[in-house]
Amino acid sequence: MEKQIEPRLLKGFRDFLPQMELFRRQIMRKLEKIFRLFGFLPIDTPVLEYAEILLGKGGGETDKQVYRFHDHGQRDIALRYDLTVPFARFMAQHLNELALPFKRYHIGKVWRGENTQRGRYREFTQIDFDIVGVDSASADFEILLLMFRSMAALGIEKFKIHFFHRGLYNNLLKHIGLEKKSIDILRAIDKSKKIGKENVAGLLKECGCGDHIERILSFIQPGVNFNETLENITAQIGSDSQEITRLHDIQQCIADMGLDNFFLLDPAITRGLDYYTGIVYETFLTDIPQIGSVCSGGRYNNLASLYTRAKLPGVGSSIGLDRLIAALEELKLLKEITETISTPLLILFLDQNLLSYYHQLAAAFHERGIAAEVFPVKKKLSAQFNYAQKKSIPLALICGELEMEKGSVTIKDLRSRQSYENLILEQAIAKVTELSPG
Amino acid sequence: MEKQIEPRLLKGFRDFLPQMELFRRQIMRKLEKIFRLFGFLPIDTPVLEYAEILLGKGGGETDKQVYRFHDHGQRDIALRYDLTVPFARFMAQHLNELALPFKRYHIGKVWRGENTQRGRYREFTQIDFDIVGVDSASADFEILLLMFRSMAALGIEKFKIHFFHRGLYNNLLKHIGLEKKSIDILRAIDKSKKIGKENVAGLLKECGCGDHIERILSFIQPGVNFNETLENITAQIGSDSQEITRLHDIQQCIADMGLDNFFLLDPAITRGLDYYTGIVYETFLTDIPQIGSVCSGGRYNNLASLYTRAKLPGVGSSIGLDRLIAALEELKLLKEITETISTPLLILFLDQNLLSYYHQLAAAFHERGIAAEVFPVKKKLSAQFNYAQKKSIPLALICGELEMEKGSVTIKDLRSRQSYENLILEQAIAKVTELSPG
Repeated sequence: MEKQIEPRLLKGFRDFLPQMELFRRQIMRKLEKIFRLFGFLPIDTPVLEYAEILLGKGGGETDKQVYRFHDHGQRDIALRYDLTVPFARFMAQHLNELALPFKRYHIGKVWRGENTQRGRYREFTQIDFDIVGVDSASADFEILLLMFRSMAALGIEKFKIHFFHRGLYNNLLKHIGLEKKSIDILRAIDKSKKIGKENVAGLLKECGCGDHIERILSFIQPGVNFNETLENITAQIGSDSQEITRLHDIQQCIADMGLDNFFLLDPAITRGLDYYTGIVYETFLTDIPQIGSVCSGGRYNNLASLYTRAKLPGVGSSIGLDRLIAALEELKLLKEITETISTPLLILFLDQNLLSYYHQLAAAFHERGIAAEVFPVKKKLSAQFNYAQKKSIPLALICGELEMEKGSVTIKDLRSRQSYENLILEQAIAKVTELSPG
Repeated sequence: MEKQIEPRLLKGFRDFLPQMELFRRQIMRKLEKIFRLFGFLPIDTPVLEYAEILLGKGGGETDKQVYRFHDHGQRDIALRYDLTVPFARFMAQHLNELALPFKRYHIGKVWRGENTQRGRYREFTQIDFDIVGVDSASADFEILLLMFRSMAALGIEKFKIHFFHRGLYNNLLKHIGLEKKSIDILRAIDKSKKIGKENVAGLLKECGCGDHIERILSFIQPGVNFNETLENITAQIGSDSQEITRLHDIQQCIADMGLDNFFLLDPAITRGLDYYTGIVYETFLTDIPQIGSVCSGGRYNNLASLYTRAKLPGVGSSIGLDRLIAALEELKLLKEITETISTPLLILFLDQNLLSYYHQLAAAFHERGIAAEVFPVKKKLSAQFNYAQKKSIPLALICGELEMEKGSVTIKDLRSRQSYENLILEQAIAKVTELSPG
């Protein structure tokens, strides 16, 4: 006997069995449909790139987590750890081939050797969408609208997209003379939803904000609505700025589209990265806020500065598919997606002489776009019914030699155990259509 | 000025720009639709696995090409180089969770550090479909039928699926006392389409086939039809075997389905791998045979012997997406797929005050499932038309302040330059539907 290898996975990596993979594909398809409606087009980039390209500036927390190695030609290479860096490289490299403004989406796996104890995976899927080559309120709003439509398309009803403008912090910090510490201050504020106001005060103290802590904390306090929040802001830094105009324009679009209930101007949203320069946003699910943001992003004024001198402003957002699916599972929304996607009909295999006939019956259903499968071998009925049950197939087609000669079949509903006998093929197709879920 | 990094890709790796990525997704979707009609379900597995799992027996040509390295925890890991080995591991690991017979498809990238001089890529996409857990003519035929339907779904009209049975070689070689050299002999025969009969004779001589070369060459010569070919075979090794019965059953299904013209019993098909035990097949495109097989596979009697003692017979096939796309491009079939997938409508941005109104107009189209995009910033008309042309958007919606007040819009066909003025929204939607390609 051959020595056997234990079948196992690397820590932090997962297989997707059919049911879950069906969910995933269904979700990706629903999102793609939205992106395409808005004229966004898909791209793809390699999983492996030169480490120099992916790590660029380097030195960050991410670097240590990157899967990096030397290939057969001793090239220093790595697996992508997000879709943003490859996109920046892509834009720089193909600028002459693309129509600007460029609206793309990208769905792909990324890898980070993170600490799995925090329930993180080392292989996960991101869904990014961006508009590059223009700095406008229309583009900012379109990304927000896509985020709204994406959540709605997945059946999520209770959620809120929190947004703010990074430029307003710059104005505030300039006002109080703390602009040099802005990244540390913004990172502290970014944590406020997780660690609470008091702890943020502590962090601000560490940043050397001293006398200004109260002012900063009052700045990030949201009002009851857009106008009240904005008044609080403008009271501190003035209303005459392009940042304020931009927020007004966006809010106008939100209100005119009747989406006020789904958006919140929230000065506590900063996004940690120094990369963002304009509007920033995060999406929270009302019933499970603890899961964190399921869709976040913002405006940047220079996507690809590492690879090209061409200025590429843009705005975009990213959905973490794995976190989103965990959320849908918790909200009991995954089940709703499934029922329409199981095969409706199993054609039972009763007689070896009918092998070819069974496949012809199946073809008649396939021609109508109805999924139907032939049980692939003669076995006792209980085994075939058992298979149908395991695969959640609700209907069976029964046909023996006598029935074939008569040109009839029986359709059995495996849920109610009711049988419909002596159906000619057209009647059987009508019955299956009638009894199919979804 | 910051030092810049040259944006470039690793040799053998490619970006997919929107047009090509649209093709790829469209093709994958069409194939998935077929798989789902037949009750096949998707799975996914990690890109990274333990090297021990992926390389198993090891020592093959593939080993040298595998991307293999040590991770942060000093684990010996590798990127998958096909979808078969991960599938075998998957079946062994999840056997208790799956309904047998298990019908799955898997679409995913794989990596091999191949010599790129032969026009090969180092990152490519495979599409595998298998029926595991049963050894039957029905399952064999179903995979062949799926291959036929896949080609047909892509608009390929002229192709032939060549099939044979590996067991018949074993019978022949046992007959002539050469069974110990069977793998070398089968590999030599496998090359016959590429290198011609004479060179195969040379290889067979090297294998030590001596006096039997003529007999082997006569064995692999196809007749004018199924029956003649089979007569030639049975004349040499007898007709009373389960292999012959299996081929008859499969051929009966092919004939009853009216697909004779698309299948050919071809004794020169062996598939090199020792892994196959039953039916084997390859698919050739009539107009471009030189591109080689675009869809191949066969029956194996023990998928996961490396990882489990459970016997898992199965039958499956694999499509190389990249080669298939090259073929579709050469057959001028890619273009046909596109035209139905470009965005039909660009809403021009003429007036900053209408920002919100433009998005509401777009929403009215989106609600009808019609893709429409708002140009994201006010620019001169020529720039906006130029954008439409680059993105192959055939129609533009024109609306200024006066028209908004009247509640009307203009639709302009950018191909014929014809304008349709004073349309109310419902008329505009009807006009766009009428003028949209596909």
